Amino acid sequence: MSRDLKAMISQMTLEEKAGLCSGLDFWRLKGVERLGIPSIMVTDGPHGLRKQQGDTDHLGMFASVPATCFPSAAGMASSWDRELINRVGEALGEECQAEDVAVLLGPGANMKRSPLCGRNFEYFSEDPYLSSEMAASHINGVQSQGVGTSLKHFAVNNQEHRRMSVDAIVDERTLREIYLASFEGAVKKAQPWTVMSSYNKVNGEFASENEYLLTRILKEEWGHEGIVVTDWGATNERVAGLAAGNELEMPGSGGSGDRKIIEAVRSGRLAEEALDRAVERLLRVIFMSVDRKKPNASYDQEEHHRLARQVAGESMVLLKNQEALLPIAKGKRIAVVGEFAKKPRYQGGGSSHIRPTKLDEPFEEILKLAGESASVVYEQGYSLDQDETDDALSAAAVKAAGEAEIAIVFAGLPDRYESEGYDRTHLRMPANQEKLIEAVANAQRNVVVVLMNGSPIEMPWIGQVGSVLEAYLGGQAAGGAIADLLFGEANPSGKLAETFPAKLSDNPSYLFFPGEGDRVEYREGIFIGYRYYDTKQVKPLFPFGHGLSYTTFEYSDLVIGHNRIRDTDTVEVKATVRNTGPRAGKEVVQLYVRDVDSTVIRPSKELKHFAKIDLQPGEATTVSFVLDKRSFAYYNVTLKDWYVESGEFEIMIGRSSEEIVLIGSLHVESTVRIPLTVHRNSLLGDLLNDPGKAAVIQGLLQKFQEGMGVTTNALEDAEGMGDMFAALMKFLPLRNLVGFSQGAVTEEMLDELIEQLNRTN
Amino acid sequence: MSRDLKAMISQMTLEEKAGLCSGLDFWRLKGVERLGIPSIMVTDGPHGLRKQQGDTDHLGMFASVPATCFPSAAGMASSWDRELINRVGEALGEECQAEDVAVLLGPGANMKRSPLCGRNFEYFSEDPYLSSEMAASHINGVQSQGVGTSLKHFAVNNQEHRRMSVDAIVDERTLREIYLASFEGAVKKAQPWTVMSSYNKVNGEFASENEYLLTRILKEEWGHEGIVVTDWGATNERVAGLAAGNELEMPGSGGSGDRKIIEAVRSGRLAEEALDRAVERLLRVIFMSVDRKKPNASYDQEEHHRLARQVAGESMVLLKNQEALLPIAKGKRIAVVGEFAKKPRYQGGGSSHIRPTKLDEPFEEILKLAGESASVVYEQGYSLDQDETDDALSAAAVKAAGEAEIAIVFAGLPDRYESEGYDRTHLRMPANQEKLIEAVANAQRNVVVVLMNGSPIEMPWIGQVGSVLEAYLGGQAAGGAIADLLFGEANPSGKLAETFPAKLSDNPSYLFFPGEGDRVEYREGIFIGYRYYDTKQVKPLFPFGHGLSYTTFEYSDLVIGHNRIRDTDTVEVKATVRNTGPRAGKEVVQLYVRDVDSTVIRPSKELKHFAKIDLQPGEATTVSFVLDKRSFAYYNVTLKDWYVESGEFEIMIGRSSEEIVLIGSLHVESTVRIPLTVHRNSLLGDLLNDPGKAAVIQGLLQKFQEGMGVTTNALEDAEGMGDMFAALMKFLPLRNLVGFSQGAVTEEMLDELIEQLNRTN
Repeated sequence: MSRDLKAMISQMTLEEKAGLCSGLDFWRLKGVERLGIPSIMVTDGPHGLRKQQGDTDHLGMFASVPATCFPSAAGMASSWDRELINRVGEALGEECQAEDVAVLLGPGANMKRSPLCGRNFEYFSEDPYLSSEMAASHINGVQSQGVGTSLKHFAVNNQEHRRMSVDAIVDERTLREIYLASFEGAVKKAQPWTVMSSYNKVNGEFASENEYLLTRILKEEWGHEGIVVTDWGATNERVAGLAAGNELEMPGSGGSGDRKIIEAVRSGRLAEEALDRAVERLLRVIFMSVDRKKPNASYDQEEHHRLARQVAGESMVLLKNQEALLPIAKGKRIAVVGEFAKKPRYQGGGSSHIRPTKLDEPFEEILKLAGESASVVYEQGYSLDQDETDDALSAAAVKAAGEAEIAIVFAGLPDRYESEGYDRTHLRMPANQEKLIEAVANAQRNVVVVLMNGSPIEMPWIGQVGSVLEAYLGGQAAGGAIADLLFGEANPSGKLAETFPAKLSDNPSYLFFPGEGDRVEYREGIFIGYRYYDTKQVKPLFPFGHGLSYTTFEYSDLVIGHNRIRDTDTVEVKATVRNTGPRAGKEVVQLYVRDVDSTVIRPSKELKHFAKIDLQPGEATTVSFVLDKRSFAYYNVTLKDWYVESGEFEIMIGRSSEEIVLIGSLHVESTVRIPLTVHRNSLLGDLLNDPGKAAVIQGLLQKFQEGMGVTTNALEDAEGMGDMFAALMKFLPLRNLVGFSQGAVTEEMLDELIEQLNRTN
Repeated sequence: MSRDLKAMISQMTLEEKAGLCSGLDFWRLKGVERLGIPSIMVTDGPHGLRKQQGDTDHLGMFASVPATCFPSAAGMASSWDRELINRVGEALGEECQAEDVAVLLGPGANMKRSPLCGRNFEYFSEDPYLSSEMAASHINGVQSQGVGTSLKHFAVNNQEHRRMSVDAIVDERTLREIYLASFEGAVKKAQPWTVMSSYNKVNGEFASENEYLLTRILKEEWGHEGIVVTDWGATNERVAGLAAGNELEMPGSGGSGDRKIIEAVRSGRLAEEALDRAVERLLRVIFMSVDRKKPNASYDQEEHHRLARQVAGESMVLLKNQEALLPIAKGKRIAVVGEFAKKPRYQGGGSSHIRPTKLDEPFEEILKLAGESASVVYEQGYSLDQDETDDALSAAAVKAAGEAEIAIVFAGLPDRYESEGYDRTHLRMPANQEKLIEAVANAQRNVVVVLMNGSPIEMPWIGQVGSVLEAYLGGQAAGGAIADLLFGEANPSGKLAETFPAKLSDNPSYLFFPGEGDRVEYREGIFIGYRYYDTKQVKPLFPFGHGLSYTTFEYSDLVIGHNRIRDTDTVEVKATVRNTGPRAGKEVVQLYVRDVDSTVIRPSKELKHFAKIDLQPGEATTVSFVLDKRSFAYYNVTLKDWYVESGEFEIMIGRSSEEIVLIGSLHVESTVRIPLTVHRNSLLGDLLNDPGKAAVIQGLLQKFQEGMGVTTNALEDAEGMGDMFAALMKFLPLRNLVGFSQGAVTEEMLDELIEQLNRTN
């Protein structure tokens, strides 16, 4: 339905307009009844609806209506499956329609800078491309149902520690290539109705009132058409926020923010046009919701549960599988150990915590699939409420494990270990769980560990167990999905969307996380995640992109469309993958790019494309990727633009960031020329590298060498004069031609030369 | 002799004064004959005199008069012996007097940020305290002979790559704690007559015209009384340099710099008083030299050679000695392998390269000490001129090694691998040497590797050899010193003054060294050397402070003078060390300090004191260290001063940075209070941690919680409300009391509260 929003705005009072810019309460926007502007509702969260029941509190921490709990983002991203995430989005959209929710507050596209961040389970990846692809699919899915999303938390919100006051200091190139890129792709590909500004400051300014981020980049550069909403309570100075492009303050601030806007307009500090533009964006979103509202919508809880089980299965990552211990044949004697087997951890704490429509219990699901002749026993092993070993529980578990043919240990992080609101301080599991795994492994040769956790843990016991299945926080159907994978009803196909480090101190942010007071410096720069481990040659426990399958895949026939392209061209890269094992299975084909020789600091590889494919035994397919300028570019802070340095680029196809199976290369030629401006401190070597300028400089060099009393041409005869003299000449500033030539070169001659050099381009 | 320098200056013309501020030629200052101001001479370099013969060129790269070549700084520092370095300084001073040299251009106190820096062999350490102690001893030694020194290169000159144009970006705390601290101690303890400003820029400004470094810090804060001389050719804008505190431009710039000074004074851009102050400092140094000149001085070349041998022996570091392979008993069948055994590398390339008075050949010295019944053969093994294996040379060496009882392989870095002027790009030895070691180790079980190199190398062969003696660049008597150590005539007592990393990429600066174009960012900050390896838990090949002996030492009885001190007090720390082995030997007792719990980022240990002791077999001694404020402090950039955070500090006595043998602790109480200024974004948790402020805030908190509808005291009942809610409250900015309280707390109440909180101190 088409409406004249501008006309509507002209009918609104200043108070009504200001009012529209903040929430009515914790979950609703204001409406203006007399103008037919309804009050719409928003709710948490990205992997399931958290619509509160009643109005019990103002912090939104109490009971909510039941909704399907899908795997949290850390898990979902491990599926590397755009289409699947899209279907989850559709399902979430359906549930929103059924519950009369206009906007779902998610997904979160923040980068996993440190594995300690308490909210990592809600984020996709340490790689901006993978994260933006997952976020875009999620948004497109939800919004296809006429429900909005809120891409959050924009931006550089990578820790919970002091999250409302911390200032993230990050250099511009890192900001663009890593922390913003994750949002950029999602905004451009999926146009989320809303973007949520984060609590923290970025380079000295609150994200919620950061014009550079909210207006220059988000709205103008990326073309975001929706609104920016503050994270709940993120408003610092309301008028500054509005002026910077933050249309909506949530929740309401008891009228305080509205009053400040009104005063600012009245006093002329804020142009009414700026307010009007905000209101227009707000109305567009409100009426988008009105127009796409599906009356009497409902959804099929059973069907959504089945989808949750499928997604969970594809999200889990088989980290280790020695001697094909998994899948487990039917009819075995199995000991299931660990309280998580009966009380699974399937979602994280905080605003995303929802009330599921139903909940699979892993032990029960194992019973269902273990086979008729199987004998399956359960032992609690440890208590989730404490970190100390309960000797009786442990002994019973070890005994059961010893008497079985195989032991499945459920372990991971209890709720209290990771949540929105605070960060972890170490990467260990509770001591009782670690000890239990070791004790079970002493009693039983065949040990499978199933992990339930939202982000990486250290695994001091890794060498003692046969298999490890990373189940992440798998949602309400995690139990069924785990059973599917353990017994081969499904074939694992998840790949890590983040590095599992061998130890916490290996993490690139370790020395400077979470900062000092309210200042955290991102000193590792672009070297986040595998970009660091790979370039610094730090061996991780499990690398980014890693994940095993019950079948095998063979890669061949890398074809790069051109040997040589310009940066304005695209190039197609193809590779063939064959399922050479006995089972149907899915594989994630990963494409990494390396700039072979660069004058700027670059990681030794970066993910630039991926595809998830499904192959029957013996079946082969050819995967095709199209690379463009951005696949080769870095963000050049002088040009303030993406820039490809001319030269050779390696194209690597890998099973993981560590295991590259096909390599080729091509030459990319820049169509952008960065002019070399010559000054007194330009180096001789740099000028001699530029053919045009080298010719100009030869004459003066001759004079200089005569003045110095050097008779041979030292630059051509480096060997004769020694490597040091050659280096001295290469790194010599022009200004020194005067000083070192004993008067043979004058200041005037130098000035003239510089002018002449700057004319030569 | 006392002179009225001011009167002398008043008699000088503007041209004479300006002229005095730059060199007459490459090695001499100008004089003013009519006023009796002589022209004095300066020469390279820190471990031996490089006085040029004649006037053959203007870059000072040609033949020089013979002088004693002592071990280069990398080696000398490994002695950790203040008194010994002082004696080397005295010897150098004597040689300067004999050669009529007024100022010796050294020592170098730059930090070893990366092992790649081509000039590391001329620098002492990666630790600022050790470096400053070594530099102070060197300076005091030279200057005790009436000869000046030039402490160089001030400052933050840690690479040769683009050294004349590169801008070192380093945060203030790192600058103070690491890069300046190395100079600070030396200036304060030894008052070098001159300090040499470096080529590079520091945080955007050339060091040679950096008023903050040259005037504010060096002259005003540290009280330096001498002059600052530019590194040769480091002048950028002469007038800016002079104004910033750079008195002397070297070498002369053909009069260009002088003319600029004269013009600037005439035009009023430069106050003549500033020039006069510079001239006064210059005259003071010139006449200091005149007054202390020893006519007809000479020195005993043989005695200095003997000193060089002793110093070399104490500088070398026994890195590995499996099964007490060393020392070698007399009368063995020995194969000496490697061209270095006949052509030792004993000094580095560049300005410090000198012409020795004589040169020990290692093979010959081994012959002398091997014992009468010994059979010693030599095989070249490889050619120093190339990196490729010469099969014939290699085969002959392997054969000789196989037929001997023990093989001594001489290996290391050829001249072309490290020099002033350029940096290394990797840490490997030439491939032919690496392969030779492996081949010899296959043929002979008893392999000793003697290394000649100026800075760390990777040792992929380390597991295959029994002993490794790091000889560094040991000066002209290195050959004799090596023989002394190999045959037990001397007992190794050197300890590494730098970390040997397992691989280059482990180095903290790796990702950002040597920078992009003319910008290098010191992103690792204070985490240089062992501060990084230790805190990041990166296992080095050999840690800082490591070095073996032929005897054993037992540590006991750590006594810390007080349990509790104020930061204005000192505390004595004592420990007893006993020689429990069969030989006399020297040990370096190292004292490290750790701030147990700090709100700022600090390394897990820092060297704060050391002592070198000499013990007969069975003898014990008690070492005493006095620690003061600086031993516990970090540089606080807000206070712009050194600051001790009250709390517990661990005192660690170690044989190396890795091997700590005694640990104790004490409490240090700060006498400086940093006031907590309260503002809208102060966090509730921070205020509640301050007893005075906590009381003030309770009333408003009550209102806030009522407003929120939270009835229990959430801050006291964290368990009940969940960990997340507790974190939320702890990290809640004051401003949110308004927004979240639904009107119960107003903006006005908040403003009043903040005022009241700021009154409470």
